[in-house]
Amino acid sequence: VLAAPAIAQENPKITWRLTSSFPKSLDTIFGGATDIAERVAAATDGNFNIQVFAAGEIVPGLQAVDAVAAGTVEAAHTTSYYFWGKEPTFAFGTAIPFGLNARMSNAWFYQGNGNTLMNEFYATQGLYGLPAGNTGVQMGGWFRKEINTVDDLKGLKMRIAGLAGKVLEKVGVVPQQLAGGDIYPALEKGTIDAAEFVGPYDDSKLGFHKVAKYYYYPGFWEAGPVVHGFFNLEKFNNLPKNYQAILQDACSFANTNMMAKYDTKNPPALKQLVAEGTVLRPFSQEILEACYQAAVGIYADLSAQSPHFKKVYDDQLAFKKDAYLWAQLGEYTFDTFMMIQQRAGKL
Amino acid sequence: VLAAPAIAQENPKITWRLTSSFPKSLDTIFGGATDIAERVAAATDGNFNIQVFAAGEIVPGLQAVDAVAAGTVEAAHTTSYYFWGKEPTFAFGTAIPFGLNARMSNAWFYQGNGNTLMNEFYATQGLYGLPAGNTGVQMGGWFRKEINTVDDLKGLKMRIAGLAGKVLEKVGVVPQQLAGGDIYPALEKGTIDAAEFVGPYDDSKLGFHKVAKYYYYPGFWEAGPVVHGFFNLEKFNNLPKNYQAILQDACSFANTNMMAKYDTKNPPALKQLVAEGTVLRPFSQEILEACYQAAVGIYADLSAQSPHFKKVYDDQLAFKKDAYLWAQLGEYTFDTFMMIQQRAGKL
Repeated sequence: VLAAPAIAQENPKITWRLTSSFPKSLDTIFGGATDIAERVAAATDGNFNIQVFAAGEIVPGLQAVDAVAAGTVEAAHTTSYYFWGKEPTFAFGTAIPFGLNARMSNAWFYQGNGNTLMNEFYATQGLYGLPAGNTGVQMGGWFRKEINTVDDLKGLKMRIAGLAGKVLEKVGVVPQQLAGGDIYPALEKGTIDAAEFVGPYDDSKLGFHKVAKYYYYPGFWEAGPVVHGFFNLEKFNNLPKNYQAILQDACSFANTNMMAKYDTKNPPALKQLVAEGTVLRPFSQEILEACYQAAVGIYADLSAQSPHFKKVYDDQLAFKKDAYLWAQLGEYTFDTFMMIQQRAGKL
Repeated sequence: VLAAPAIAQENPKITWRLTSSFPKSLDTIFGGATDIAERVAAATDGNFNIQVFAAGEIVPGLQAVDAVAAGTVEAAHTTSYYFWGKEPTFAFGTAIPFGLNARMSNAWFYQGNGNTLMNEFYATQGLYGLPAGNTGVQMGGWFRKEINTVDDLKGLKMRIAGLAGKVLEKVGVVPQQLAGGDIYPALEKGTIDAAEFVGPYDDSKLGFHKVAKYYYYPGFWEAGPVVHGFFNLEKFNNLPKNYQAILQDACSFANTNMMAKYDTKNPPALKQLVAEGTVLRPFSQEILEACYQAAVGIYADLSAQSPHFKKVYDDQLAFKKDAYLWAQLGEYTFDTFMMIQQRAGKL
């Protein structure tokens, strides 16, 4: 048998399976996975082939990282905070309530300690992870009645999961865990009073505006939620070096492209919702303050329980303080001026 | 002679030269070019080798796109608005005064019509261009005296170039064109009264804070300035398809990574400047309004002169209106709340 020429090793044929935690109907967030697959295929003339499966096709959405860690599939495209119950540090991979906005998330992951610290943690789980999508600040969700004070939240049954649910529970909300498809009927029947999902474009598809009038903002529990590409650590390490680089850059493209999709698709969807009778409402300062205090208390508890959590939390908090100092100058004053023009019809 | 195996074509040895318009001392903005080169090398096992040259090493900074169009070098990393005098449409490749912020720029280029429209135009210049860096909203610059009203701008000699200079000229400023290295002595001697450069991290290196006390914001003429990778159109088209994809994704990585660098390096630099006596000042609403009106007038003139300009301007303006409608909800209210916490020392 003749040895293959060395150069033939450059772009070997490899097929991977990637499980998304999202349905194909959400072209925005599911699209991040197909972006990764398409860019990797283009960069390798199709030799590195990533087959993308929607949630539930081969792995249920909420078991994505377990399947990757076990090697059942090589890759997943998911939000790591789904897995915060396994270890609370997973929350930072996506967003913690009152965390970083999308641009600050990128800065922390790419140039702060984010990627290093999170991959130290992911490695303990058999995973390698990279940012591969962002939604920006999500909406606070759909409410059947107006809520103005913390008292209005007492006993309110709201579809909201994870750490965000814990925060709202502390101020009186009764969090409900429902799959995406079960939200609409529950909201219609009044089994729940409120539900959060993503933002105008995705939410419109599920029709929540037909059964709940008030659309609140901001979704302070998801200010810059990162969607991750997760890879089985050993399989990633065994990839040819150039495939590792190609996969990293494909995730980087998917990261920016998903944010761009949301920023392009949300405005027309928002206008359509308002035209159909949706009433926009900001959460009151009182509600925001109470939730913020609740979140700070939870972070103190989790820091006491998990050294991983504490290490990442302290680092991200220091980064956030600086980021919000700096953002007050150019970014905020420029945007403020432009919004004044927008409101005055002068843009 | 035996034919090389077909697979040997996959990653052929190619060497390109890239001229940056920036000096090596600015690791932020110059770093975008080295990012592109490093990611391309990693993705091709070093077979696609892009040699990066600083401004002036082989091509003067302000001749970068001419050199690419002529094929003297294959690539450049530069800001397209340097070349707005050749054709005003070049301005949109970076930023027009009161244009899009960094995130909106990404949305317009990646998912709006930005990349398509700009490459229609770039093709007429023999170029293919992609976003490959962003600085975010820059600072408004260094002023020896406080300026509060439009009257304070009359006769003010300010180092500022391009379309931004035209806008400020309309409100009374006398724009001065000076290379980066000439700014400090001019400001020190009082030959000029003010100078804009980039932001805290880059500006600190040039020491402007030692000769001008007031640091104004926002740099409304550069809200989300894009740094471009430019490639000779014919040479890009002749690249193997996988190299085209690799180069595109490398630019995408550089785009996000540069913004992340600025967001990470600017906050500590800002704190250091303030500690050394720099006084931060926002431009007054009166000044912003007057400059905004001046800009709108200039855009009407340029639209009348150049059909290319009008086409891109109209498209970007429609995108901007929607973007600033949407940004007022979650993004702005979340950031506002977090800034209130930051100022209260509660972060």
